[in-house]
Amino acid sequence: SVFYKYQPIDLVRKYFGEKIGLYFAWLGVYTQMLIPASIVGVIVFLYGCATVDENIPSMEMCDERNNITMCPLCDNTCSYWKMSSSCATARASHLFDNPATVFFSVFMALWAATFMEHWKRKQMRLNYRWDLTGFEEEEAHPRAEYEAKVLEKSVRKEYIRKKTDKEKLTWKDRFPAYFTNFVGIIFMIGLTFAIVFGVIIYRISTAAALALSSTPSGRSSVRVTVTATAVIINLVVIIILDEVYGCIARWLTEIEVPKTDKSFEERLIFKAFLLKFVNAYTPIFYVAFFKGRFVGRPGDYVYIFHSFRMEECAPGGCLMELCIQLSIIMLGKQLIQNNLFEIGIPKMKKLIRYIKLKRQRSLDHEEHMKKKQRYEVDYNLEPFAGLTPEYMEMIIQFGFVTLFVASFPLAPLFALLNNIIEIRLDAKKFVTELRRPVAVRAKDIGIWYNILRGVGKLAVIINAFVISFTSDFIPRLVYLYMYSENGTMHGFVNHTLSSFNVSDFQGGTAPNDPMELGYEVRICRYKDYREPPWSENKYEISKDFWAVLAARLAFVIVFQNLVMFMSDFVDWIIPDIPKDISQQIHKEKVLMVEVFMKEEQGKLQMLETWKVKDMKKGENCNNHSPKLSRSQSGSMSSCHSYHIDV
Amino acid sequence: SVFYKYQPIDLVRKYFGEKIGLYFAWLGVYTQMLIPASIVGVIVFLYGCATVDENIPSMEMCDERNNITMCPLCDNTCSYWKMSSSCATARASHLFDNPATVFFSVFMALWAATFMEHWKRKQMRLNYRWDLTGFEEEEAHPRAEYEAKVLEKSVRKEYIRKKTDKEKLTWKDRFPAYFTNFVGIIFMIGLTFAIVFGVIIYRISTAAALALSSTPSGRSSVRVTVTATAVIINLVVIIILDEVYGCIARWLTEIEVPKTDKSFEERLIFKAFLLKFVNAYTPIFYVAFFKGRFVGRPGDYVYIFHSFRMEECAPGGCLMELCIQLSIIMLGKQLIQNNLFEIGIPKMKKLIRYIKLKRQRSLDHEEHMKKKQRYEVDYNLEPFAGLTPEYMEMIIQFGFVTLFVASFPLAPLFALLNNIIEIRLDAKKFVTELRRPVAVRAKDIGIWYNILRGVGKLAVIINAFVISFTSDFIPRLVYLYMYSENGTMHGFVNHTLSSFNVSDFQGGTAPNDPMELGYEVRICRYKDYREPPWSENKYEISKDFWAVLAARLAFVIVFQNLVMFMSDFVDWIIPDIPKDISQQIHKEKVLMVEVFMKEEQGKLQMLETWKVKDMKKGENCNNHSPKLSRSQSGSMSSCHSYHIDV
Repeated sequence: SVFYKYQPIDLVRKYFGEKIGLYFAWLGVYTQMLIPASIVGVIVFLYGCATVDENIPSMEMCDERNNITMCPLCDNTCSYWKMSSSCATARASHLFDNPATVFFSVFMALWAATFMEHWKRKQMRLNYRWDLTGFEEEEAHPRAEYEAKVLEKSVRKEYIRKKTDKEKLTWKDRFPAYFTNFVGIIFMIGLTFAIVFGVIIYRISTAAALALSSTPSGRSSVRVTVTATAVIINLVVIIILDEVYGCIARWLTEIEVPKTDKSFEERLIFKAFLLKFVNAYTPIFYVAFFKGRFVGRPGDYVYIFHSFRMEECAPGGCLMELCIQLSIIMLGKQLIQNNLFEIGIPKMKKLIRYIKLKRQRSLDHEEHMKKKQRYEVDYNLEPFAGLTPEYMEMIIQFGFVTLFVASFPLAPLFALLNNIIEIRLDAKKFVTELRRPVAVRAKDIGIWYNILRGVGKLAVIINAFVISFTSDFIPRLVYLYMYSENGTMHGFVNHTLSSFNVSDFQGGTAPNDPMELGYEVRICRYKDYREPPWSENKYEISKDFWAVLAARLAFVIVFQNLVMFMSDFVDWIIPDIPKDISQQIHKEKVLMVEVFMKEEQGKLQMLETWKVKDMKKGENCNNHSPKLSRSQSGSMSSCHSYHIDV
Repeated sequence: SVFYKYQPIDLVRKYFGEKIGLYFAWLGVYTQMLIPASIVGVIVFLYGCATVDENIPSMEMCDERNNITMCPLCDNTCSYWKMSSSCATARASHLFDNPATVFFSVFMALWAATFMEHWKRKQMRLNYRWDLTGFEEEEAHPRAEYEAKVLEKSVRKEYIRKKTDKEKLTWKDRFPAYFTNFVGIIFMIGLTFAIVFGVIIYRISTAAALALSSTPSGRSSVRVTVTATAVIINLVVIIILDEVYGCIARWLTEIEVPKTDKSFEERLIFKAFLLKFVNAYTPIFYVAFFKGRFVGRPGDYVYIFHSFRMEECAPGGCLMELCIQLSIIMLGKQLIQNNLFEIGIPKMKKLIRYIKLKRQRSLDHEEHMKKKQRYEVDYNLEPFAGLTPEYMEMIIQFGFVTLFVASFPLAPLFALLNNIIEIRLDAKKFVTELRRPVAVRAKDIGIWYNILRGVGKLAVIINAFVISFTSDFIPRLVYLYMYSENGTMHGFVNHTLSSFNVSDFQGGTAPNDPMELGYEVRICRYKDYREPPWSENKYEISKDFWAVLAARLAFVIVFQNLVMFMSDFVDWIIPDIPKDISQQIHKEKVLMVEVFMKEEQGKLQMLETWKVKDMKKGENCNNHSPKLSRSQSGSMSSCHSYHIDV
């Protein structure tokens, strides 16, 4: 309800300690930064909507007059079909596949860089305000589990060792744990891949099945239904596996027995992030980069299990499907997992505990009489589970916002909407649903910062590939500058399609009713760059294919290096520490030193004056007077450094 | 003479101060790191020498039996020539163009990353040993020039201002200077390009002239002579311009009127580096990436000024020429500039001053009588010009070692040899030739570190391009896996050559004596991927060209990302601060705090005991007792942070 107000960060810090304070501050900065991103995203999207009608390729695809007969999408049952029948998808895909998206992905890469810098500054500011500037991690105490393991080990080798030389776990002791970790993670990732593959099989088979039954008219709807269901399956799997992987990561880290709590947390986070990242993005990567790439060609299709043909992308390009996939997974994940789970589960647990309490209270009445203490009431709340899940969810979301933004410019907007709610829900949860956590001091957000940087770097490369390989941006340019005779996009669609002589169908793969379109088909078209049937080496990959491929790769190189350079530049021109803060700090130091010096001097004088009176006491302050006098006699700078050394 | 000994860094620091100490330390680390690099480089080179005889492509080129008739290298005067006549260059180029160089450039990229990390650690160690750990830059005082400018400005606007609010130079005041800088730098870079272009023209024209005169037999030597002379011209120009640019950079920085000495130095270094870098590397870049790329094809050559044909690379590929260029410029620069100038000039100046002194001394005898003071003698030495030139020379050398190492694996070795002498020469110069510089404290090597990082990053990309575009590595792979029928390299040379029908020569470009080779030539070959004369669209760029191009670009992407990832990994696994040092620092802090606490306590007790005796004095120590008691009662951590805050 108060989403428009700023967060009371200082109060949060007072009540929950620096660590949680930093989390909310970070969340605030992130949400704030999302505002410009989502505005630009919406503009880009609107640009797509506006230009959809003067987009020549989609117009050509929709145009009934140049009736292009496409080759069947499946063996036997499917027949030839008209290009114009897939007009809708073509038009829709233009919304996300237009020059503006290229600009937008550059923009988002720079946005990410700016965000990191902005956070660094904010963090510095907070460090100063919460005076953490000089604060350093104390030497962390080893965890109980670690101590236990060490003890057990030292017991195992039968001899008493002096307290002085501490037994520690060597590489030899840890090896089995590390090995288990490695195998476990590999296995988990394999599992994820397997599941994604399963979903693909499902999609192919159901598509075939539906194609069998459905009327020609309803065939166009098949694709949509199949895609949607498949994505939903993906979503469910992802959400379930997320929970599972969370537990597994914890278990793996525990058998690893890290020395300190800090390293425990870092290892846990790293594993959990790796697993959840793979889990969340594998299906998206498949759609973006692999789907429809290994289809083969009419008359020589690629089959898996010798029965299912590899699935193709819609004629409008894979970008459309990628977009659907992204939006469903992102929105679904946010709505179901983050908000529903985060709020629902604690509430439920609370309810259960409350009921349990009720029942037992009915047994003992005298206790029921007296008013309960606050802490007794709070005891009924959920224990605090750490910030990891909160951060994790945000980082994964950050991934959705940056990694594939080229294909889905509305992502920042959805993220923004989610976060505006998220902040307050988290706050509410922390205050009312959970026991008050132990306040922990922290200077920064730790390993999460590095993970963010990593995601940011990855985003540049992935966007480069999405634009050049998933979208039709490059083929259009190539056509425009290499082939188009009148300098317009007219004939682009025709250029991207290769011809196939229906007489070359292998046995049993030709469609059952070739006459479905009402006329006999000799040449059908398919989306690929191959030699026509009448060339001497027919159906071989054509020169155009290589030209386009080269252009795509060249674009990747240019894009990646350009964007990386620009974000390094942003990184360089924005100073990490705000000028005013650094000046403040410096001034304070000098001031403090002065005060301190005065104090010392005063004390020393006193001691000197009294030394004559009392010799014995005089002795015992003599032996540290040299140190004092040193700290006096030194110039400002020298005693300055002296105190810092302390 | 003592090159095998370690440097006495600590003594250097004692005598010259931290800043120069750090320079020598850095130079030491760099030289040390060069040892493994040069060893691997030599091994790679030897591998090249060893495999030159079983290298099929060069064998095929040298083989007389498959007599390939090449198209003339220039119009009219040049005639057709036999491939086998350029056997030598082909064999030579294999020395630098073999799979091992690919490995080596990966190795060097990682080497650079390791070097940076290694230096960071060393620096940390030195900081600890020279206790700079707590040392921070004092607020630097504005330079006199700046003050003057400010004063003048405040005078210009006629009104008196209070001391409190300081006048400062705004963007508006600086704009003209910045503009001049920008224009100046652009102009300088343009100048460099112009000169390089001039040298190209020279090369082309002389080549043509020599071709006219020389006998057919001597024609092969033409290329070598021309290349050599051209490179030497380049070298001379570079060395002269280096001096010029140094002065210009200084001048540009002075008119910019930076506020502090630090920023002055940084701006100066940045400009000087930019100019000298462009100056040193432009000719190399030309040979590496542009030479022989825009030749056109027989019958349709590209001409500059309508008279000179663009120059081609030797049949062995441009890599050979790149290698010659690199070695001559690198060695020449090092020998002439670094050692001769650095030692010669000061000596000469010293001599001149000495002579002058002699003459004036002959005039006044009484002064001549008494023994001169040390400082009077030293006054005759050169004044200290700052470390910038020393660093600059080393960074440029670092560039030679990393940027084009793919084409010249011996670079590290030469660098090493140079540095072993360099260290001692610098030391000697600093001790004997120059006045003792004012000792300056410094925590690190400042902007140089960033420049090194930048060069390292650039190196990855450039090496990727050198391997994929300058060397024949990729075409060979493509041939091996796409075209070769028996899986060997046989026929590779033939595959890289396109055919040209001599009847298609344009008027007046056909050779004058076509019968020079003793038989009539119908089809001549040239190094390019184009359609043969008998295809319907003859002399057009062929499919192979695009395929190879795509492969090359793909290689660049893979190489760049792989190497960048690996060096980030190296960066990540090597901790910046050595473990022992960090522990030491932490321990010391705790210790100091303890000592300090005791002291405080002791004093406080005394004061307490005496408070009763003397009331008046008691008062004045009462009012800081609260602070003290706070620092006592606090736990270790709290008072620790208290002292750090100081």
